[in-house]
Amino acid sequence: MLKSAATLRQPVVSLNIFRNCQRSFSITPVSHSIADLQGTRTETDSFGEIQVPANKYWGAQTQRSFMNFKIGGERERMPEPIIRAFGQQKKAAAIVNNSLGTLDDTLKDAIVQAAEEVSQGLLNEHFPLVVFQTGSGTQSNMNANEVISNRAIELLGGTLGSKQVHPNNHVNQSQSSNDTFPTVMHIAALTEITNTLLPNLIVLRETLDSKAKEFEKIIKIGRTHLQDATPLTLGQEFSGYTQQLTNAIKRIEKNLPELQYIAQGGTAVGTGLNTKIGFAEQFARQLSNQTNLSFLTSPNKFESLAAHDAIVNVHASLNTLACSLFKISQDIRYLASGPRCGYGELSIPENEPGSSIMPGKVNPTQNEAMCQACVQVMGNNSTISFAGASGQFELNTYKPLMIANLLSSTRLLSDAIFSFNLHCATGIQANKDKIDRLLHESLMLVTSLNPKIGYDAASKVAKNAHHKGITLKQSALELDILSSKQFDEWVRPENMLGPN
Amino acid sequence: MLKSAATLRQPVVSLNIFRNCQRSFSITPVSHSIADLQGTRTETDSFGEIQVPANKYWGAQTQRSFMNFKIGGERERMPEPIIRAFGQQKKAAAIVNNSLGTLDDTLKDAIVQAAEEVSQGLLNEHFPLVVFQTGSGTQSNMNANEVISNRAIELLGGTLGSKQVHPNNHVNQSQSSNDTFPTVMHIAALTEITNTLLPNLIVLRETLDSKAKEFEKIIKIGRTHLQDATPLTLGQEFSGYTQQLTNAIKRIEKNLPELQYIAQGGTAVGTGLNTKIGFAEQFARQLSNQTNLSFLTSPNKFESLAAHDAIVNVHASLNTLACSLFKISQDIRYLASGPRCGYGELSIPENEPGSSIMPGKVNPTQNEAMCQACVQVMGNNSTISFAGASGQFELNTYKPLMIANLLSSTRLLSDAIFSFNLHCATGIQANKDKIDRLLHESLMLVTSLNPKIGYDAASKVAKNAHHKGITLKQSALELDILSSKQFDEWVRPENMLGPN
Amino acid sequence: MLKSAATLRQPVVSLNIFRNCQRSFSITPVSHSIADLQGTRTETDSFGEIQVPANKYWGAQTQRSFMNFKIGGERERMPEPIIRAFGQQKKAAAIVNNSLGTLDDTLKDAIVQAAEEVSQGLLNEHFPLVVFQTGSGTQSNMNANEVISNRAIELLGGTLGSKQVHPNNHVNQSQSSNDTFPTVMHIAALTEITNTLLPNLIVLRETLDSKAKEFEKIIKIGRTHLQDATPLTLGQEFSGYTQQLTNAIKRIEKNLPELQYIAQGGTAVGTGLNTKIGFAEQFARQLSNQTNLSFLTSPNKFESLAAHDAIVNVHASLNTLACSLFKISQDIRYLASGPRCGYGELSIPENEPGSSIMPGKVNPTQNEAMCQACVQVMGNNSTISFAGASGQFELNTYKPLMIANLLSSTRLLSDAIFSFNLHCATGIQANKDKIDRLLHESLMLVTSLNPKIGYDAASKVAKNAHHKGITLKQSALELDILSSKQFDEWVRPENMLGPN
Amino acid sequence: MLKSAATLRQPVVSLNIFRNCQRSFSITPVSHSIADLQGTRTETDSFGEIQVPANKYWGAQTQRSFMNFKIGGERERMPEPIIRAFGQQKKAAAIVNNSLGTLDDTLKDAIVQAAEEVSQGLLNEHFPLVVFQTGSGTQSNMNANEVISNRAIELLGGTLGSKQVHPNNHVNQSQSSNDTFPTVMHIAALTEITNTLLPNLIVLRETLDSKAKEFEKIIKIGRTHLQDATPLTLGQEFSGYTQQLTNAIKRIEKNLPELQYIAQGGTAVGTGLNTKIGFAEQFARQLSNQTNLSFLTSPNKFESLAAHDAIVNVHASLNTLACSLFKISQDIRYLASGPRCGYGELSIPENEPGSSIMPGKVNPTQNEAMCQACVQVMGNNSTISFAGASGQFELNTYKPLMIANLLSSTRLLSDAIFSFNLHCATGIQANKDKIDRLLHESLMLVTSLNPKIGYDAASKVAKNAHHKGITLKQSALELDILSSKQFDEWVRPENMLGPN
Repeated sequence: MLKSAATLRQPVVSLNIFRNCQRSFSITPVSHSIADLQGTRTETDSFGEIQVPANKYWGAQTQRSFMNFKIGGERERMPEPIIRAFGQQKKAAAIVNNSLGTLDDTLKDAIVQAAEEVSQGLLNEHFPLVVFQTGSGTQSNMNANEVISNRAIELLGGTLGSKQVHPNNHVNQSQSSNDTFPTVMHIAALTEITNTLLPNLIVLRETLDSKAKEFEKIIKIGRTHLQDATPLTLGQEFSGYTQQLTNAIKRIEKNLPELQYIAQGGTAVGTGLNTKIGFAEQFARQLSNQTNLSFLTSPNKFESLAAHDAIVNVHASLNTLACSLFKISQDIRYLASGPRCGYGELSIPENEPGSSIMPGKVNPTQNEAMCQACVQVMGNNSTISFAGASGQFELNTYKPLMIANLLSSTRLLSDAIFSFNLHCATGIQANKDKIDRLLHESLMLVTSLNPKIGYDAASKVAKNAHHKGITLKQSALELDILSSKQFDEWVRPENMLGPN
Repeated sequence: MLKSAATLRQPVVSLNIFRNCQRSFSITPVSHSIADLQGTRTETDSFGEIQVPANKYWGAQTQRSFMNFKIGGERERMPEPIIRAFGQQKKAAAIVNNSLGTLDDTLKDAIVQAAEEVSQGLLNEHFPLVVFQTGSGTQSNMNANEVISNRAIELLGGTLGSKQVHPNNHVNQSQSSNDTFPTVMHIAALTEITNTLLPNLIVLRETLDSKAKEFEKIIKIGRTHLQDATPLTLGQEFSGYTQQLTNAIKRIEKNLPELQYIAQGGTAVGTGLNTKIGFAEQFARQLSNQTNLSFLTSPNKFESLAAHDAIVNVHASLNTLACSLFKISQDIRYLASGPRCGYGELSIPENEPGSSIMPGKVNPTQNEAMCQACVQVMGNNSTISFAGASGQFELNTYKPLMIANLLSSTRLLSDAIFSFNLHCATGIQANKDKIDRLLHESLMLVTSLNPKIGYDAASKVAKNAHHKGITLKQSALELDILSSKQFDEWVRPENMLGPN
Repeated sequence: MLKSAATLRQPVVSLNIFRNCQRSFSITPVSHSIADLQGTRTETDSFGEIQVPANKYWGAQTQRSFMNFKIGGERERMPEPIIRAFGQQKKAAAIVNNSLGTLDDTLKDAIVQAAEEVSQGLLNEHFPLVVFQTGSGTQSNMNANEVISNRAIELLGGTLGSKQVHPNNHVNQSQSSNDTFPTVMHIAALTEITNTLLPNLIVLRETLDSKAKEFEKIIKIGRTHLQDATPLTLGQEFSGYTQQLTNAIKRIEKNLPELQYIAQGGTAVGTGLNTKIGFAEQFARQLSNQTNLSFLTSPNKFESLAAHDAIVNVHASLNTLACSLFKISQDIRYLASGPRCGYGELSIPENEPGSSIMPGKVNPTQNEAMCQACVQVMGNNSTISFAGASGQFELNTYKPLMIANLLSSTRLLSDAIFSFNLHCATGIQANKDKIDRLLHESLMLVTSLNPKIGYDAASKVAKNAHHKGITLKQSALELDILSSKQFDEWVRPENMLGPN
Repeated sequence: MLKSAATLRQPVVSLNIFRNCQRSFSITPVSHSIADLQGTRTETDSFGEIQVPANKYWGAQTQRSFMNFKIGGERERMPEPIIRAFGQQKKAAAIVNNSLGTLDDTLKDAIVQAAEEVSQGLLNEHFPLVVFQTGSGTQSNMNANEVISNRAIELLGGTLGSKQVHPNNHVNQSQSSNDTFPTVMHIAALTEITNTLLPNLIVLRETLDSKAKEFEKIIKIGRTHLQDATPLTLGQEFSGYTQQLTNAIKRIEKNLPELQYIAQGGTAVGTGLNTKIGFAEQFARQLSNQTNLSFLTSPNKFESLAAHDAIVNVHASLNTLACSLFKISQDIRYLASGPRCGYGELSIPENEPGSSIMPGKVNPTQNEAMCQACVQVMGNNSTISFAGASGQFELNTYKPLMIANLLSSTRLLSDAIFSFNLHCATGIQANKDKIDRLLHESLMLVTSLNPKIGYDAASKVAKNAHHKGITLKQSALELDILSSKQFDEWVRPENMLGPN
């Protein structure tokens, strides 16, 4: 068994899986990992022989792609969730092929174990290909086929490259890149959004909601057009943010079911040529069982291969979320601007030195990171739209680009939300004194005098205050329009917070 | 009554409306329309006096905006659906104010009739303001207030500009631009998408669906990566398009309910200051009654004023639709390319001379118009996203821009779909001979020989055919691999159209 | 002569032009204008007969397009600068054809006069077609051919529709839509950017530069990350804006020469079939003479028809300008936020009532209009990029969309700049008291004490001030670290404004 | 000396550099590399102590950022060209500080050597921070300061973390993140575009130009609106592509000088506080000497910190290039579509198995990778525009995002161009037989008969051919309009390739 380092984001691997696997068929013990091997070995495909690194499971077609598409380097490798999804996809295919009688038990068991290792992220280093390859993702599908083939051969005690477990005939049986890649796109997207984005988003929504409640009695000046307006509570202001995220969660959940419909079973052009009747439906059921997510076979495979409107549309809900988060994050950094020369109504946590000179300077770094992530997502939305529109005939050939952008947006938003929640939102504090001072300096409270002294007199009070730079109360007393007691009784922001 | 020219898109105005109105209160007969007046009259606002055209109902604030925002000219006027929606909004507000006891019957009746005229598009020429004005749409709200005020005054036999029916105190009672404009955004968007876009889209879906059925027996070569692939039927190909539009309709319908939630009742900052308790809820019910659309009061007015995520998200579903239509339209024009030197599988209607020299040259002009509309919508999506993200504190000040782009996308897609359906889709014909010839020239059919003669022999047949530029059958016979009869029996595209 | 209403933006038409024209050939006096005609007349093209409005010059092909492309309505009509440019283009072609001996003097003179009227915007109402038509703009080219044909026939005393001056053979001689439309794209874009955008931009730059000088002695607190930072002068801050616009002007001027290269002479696919040798070069010279702009024949006509990278790239410089203007406009509205509860460092002109209740509330409406225009331009940039990338083989068929977006951006920016300059920028005033108060409240000035009392002691002063909410000076005196005199001598913002 | 693995893209490190360095000051021999160390060590900043990995040079502030911004993982690390540029920037600053007398020789020499190692990519693993951090890039600036500090301390035989060479006081002397980060943005962008993008682009232009020449005699049918049109040579078609890239190179070269102007010397807000007079100018000269690129000090540092219009505008030229490459790449894959059922005019290299079944199926994988890269660049353009517009007051806080997107676009385009040139463009072959067959099947050649037999007769020939599906010649002979000899003499595509 190859001891590749598991990443931080990898779930704990249950040892039982392997024990169970071993029970189900006899695996020749692997006395050494190919990871120890040096040099190269020969692999073949229909183009002939080619040398591949001896310590890698991949085969000839992966090697050719690796050499022919040196575009973007390691940063542009096919995202890990796609690799993992291929593990799930190949496993489910093998099980269904076996149940339909076209793949024997030994092959099936070996493929299943190898595929499981892929699905757990254990073989990530054997997936060297980048996003900018063939637009169908064929080369990554072959990468999965080749790695699973060789790992399965190894499990069975065979010789790597022998094709004893054949990458095409066995691992890719009943499949085409044209239906597997769309399938893993949906698996990866649904998994990541469900498991990372939504949970983080829900937590941030809770944080903002608790802040809304914490601040529900703090009355502050409202601002429209950036200009002083009538008052509201800080809690009401935060309730708007909470509502935005409540809606965002609903929107994402409303769009996610699109990802349940998978292309598997369509093979090359959507007809399902070379599959058995029932393969598509059984595959969806098997995949659902494996993943604890619910998948259904797409009602029209032609659409599923030739267009990725579902990806466009699901990303759109991430784009809307990015708009919401940008607004929230931007508001908070303005409200926390200062400490002396800005709005200064909020304090946010100081997580790192702002400046070596000036105490009290807290840069809203989490907000800036969040805003940057949101802007990236908005650009990704343009990319995905253009790519989604550009399919031709039976195939959209922007598949790797589309899913890479969707997963990038998902990851960036998930991580930025997590970070923003932990390092900023939970620590937001109201600067009550400043809030109160601004509220009472505002001329806008004069509104409440209209019913008492009439619009004209109230207007005179406000204009005089504005002109002389004094408070409303000072102005009212100076003009001898009302008494100090009357002012205090009538000018009450707490009565301006709702309908009456 | 002002005889302004009704636009083509205007519904037939029921005379009964006016008869009913006249029954309900006594209107001083309007002996002459202001349309006949020459010169100017004096109007006033808190800035003082200003001259306005005598034959226009608008007042001082409209005039100031008209002079201060000469941006973009007539093309950039506030879209008509917004004007009409203001008519609905002002009418509903007057009725609710009356029922809450703050607006007497005479004023209410006059406002309601004037507002109805606005809602029917009869007073469009009195709305001269452009989109690029204050970002809250305040000036268009005042435009509506002023026009309805003066028209109501006229109906009551008063003097224009007298403020007998006051634009602020009566027409805008219990309202603020900050809640009326978001409300009319939702009314206009929901109305246009429901009444124009969806019906047209459903018709096009039906057309494509009927084509899918018409073509269900025509077997053609599939194309992936633009390269020849295994066959499918032309009906299957069109079924993919149909599915895309089926999904598009569902997506739009799924997002539309967001538009039902309206901001009315939030007034300046979302608190509802200066409204009566119950105003917001009664308003939503009244508006629903008037419009035959279902509206609900927004659960959080702070969100409804400060963000327009609903607009962002609804436009996203138009953007996804644009991606679908682009793909469909692009495919069809390629499939119709030729007549001699392109794919040539389809014929599309010839609607205008393509060239004065060459007969048979049919330019896919409807497809080109459609593609251009789609690309405009994708750009609008960027505009709307950026604008949606850029609200600040209690107010998003990109309201006119956002709704103008949404309505532009709605109109362009509706019209382009209507035109494309009528002038192109319904007339698509299959060039069966060309389709059949290409199918049988393709080397891809060799796939069906694999189970009969083995992959190696089949491969030899195909390679020989490719090399010599002959047909598969010629190649097979030449290589003496099988008989003419066997070839005809085994190479049957009709057996390659689904799972087995 | 048809008395069509000249638009507001139309230059004064010199009567001499017509007098001169009349001198050069004998025109049968036009006893009545077709504008007086009622009903329809019959026009023909290769599709046969069709009825057109009797009072319009357009012919059969325009009528067909008008009926077949009901997309977007009047707002989406081909922009006026394109119509005018067609006037210039047809005039130049007629003159060159005449000089090359393929068009006789009478026809040439009639065409030239009719084309001139088009170029002056006198015949705008005869151009009813919309942007969303055939992607080559063929229908608008035919619209120009037909209108000029019939108007020329009228000038010569003939019968409209008689084709005595033939739209194709004479008006469109040596031309194809495929080279005329790209030519008018460049004429229109170069004209509008040169004549409207740049002059307005230069004026705004001057205004901001004069403000930078006016404010050069006003020291204010700097803000980075929205947080208080070291001081600068308000003049320095405005000098940054000035520099942005200086750069913007340079960028546009650097890109404009791309528009000088015109496609005319390429005809249908770029080869120049059906033109005389020399036509392309003579045309560019003639056009330059007519327009006072400098045009050159494109070095490669294949590129000029099939791609519009020049349009993409010129719009990119408008996009960069939009980014600059957004930043400037956004800064100014934040600096003017308040009056009491915002930054409040600037005052901007009050152009219209902000609120009926609160005096002193000035909404930054011009800034909001500007920001909206900028965001529209950014979306247009996406549209133009996608459209520019999507040409195929010998023709890009997004021509009307691309130029419409470019002209829209040009117009919006020109107008918004003009409006912003006039109604906002020229009236910006510094609130010196507020600026000074914020400056001296800031803790950041403590930086200047570092060399005098050391970082640690300075830090103690600042932290104490921050903690207690007192000034730096109060803090320093309270801590007995320095004397009042020392503080006043050492803490001098005026010494913090540059290198030393 | 730390033996970190150099990346593939790293230039060969001249050992002389180190020998020279050693001559100039006495370095305590480094007996062991920190790479061998286990565990952690304590580092400090104004927030206090923190543990960092013992085998990393970074300090406390880097560690805090690393822990506080877990956004996006390794894929989102600050791009390597930025790290290298920091090496150049810190080296130049140390040299200028030394020459201005504020940094002694020993410190200077140690900093210079450490900075050189950074500039050569030798210390990449010590830069763990991601793009989504503070928007000023402060944390990456501190990362550079800390790594250079500790590596310089090591070179001088000191204790890591001792601040003997102080990250702020020495390495960051006369600097602020706010001017260093914009400076490294320009260094990195100018370097990568100059050294990788332009050379690759020039090569591809050459390849296409040589193809244009190779194909200059091959006459083919033109296509406009995807429909058959008049002929041109394949060389002419390719000359359009060449022209697009010629223009692209010019555009990039025209915009690059914007990147020469660097912000260094502006420090915190643009005033240059804490720098010596002359620092900015000397820095630009020193940097130019080091890098063989020409840099100039920005004429206005306020603009250089607060806006990144130069980045927006330079990326715009990459965006235009992406549009060009998309068009070229798309055209070529359509022209190579087939082999039997597409256009089939070109053959492109077969680099990997297209399908395990079908010989002759060559998927245009390089074109697909190129198109995907182009679409990513177009999305990045939206991101950069939005980010560039969103600076506030004295600082744009989207710096890391902007430069990461610019560098991503540069890398993707460079690599995709290199790959496309090598694996596709150089191997493009014309399928002369197919081209010739299509040319002669086309009905468009009838155009050349117009002057001989008149438009009507020619039209009859063409229509008859179209109707019966026969050739023009067959039609002409069948209609007895001309003789076989006449046809062959008059219908000559070679006479339709230019003006006459």
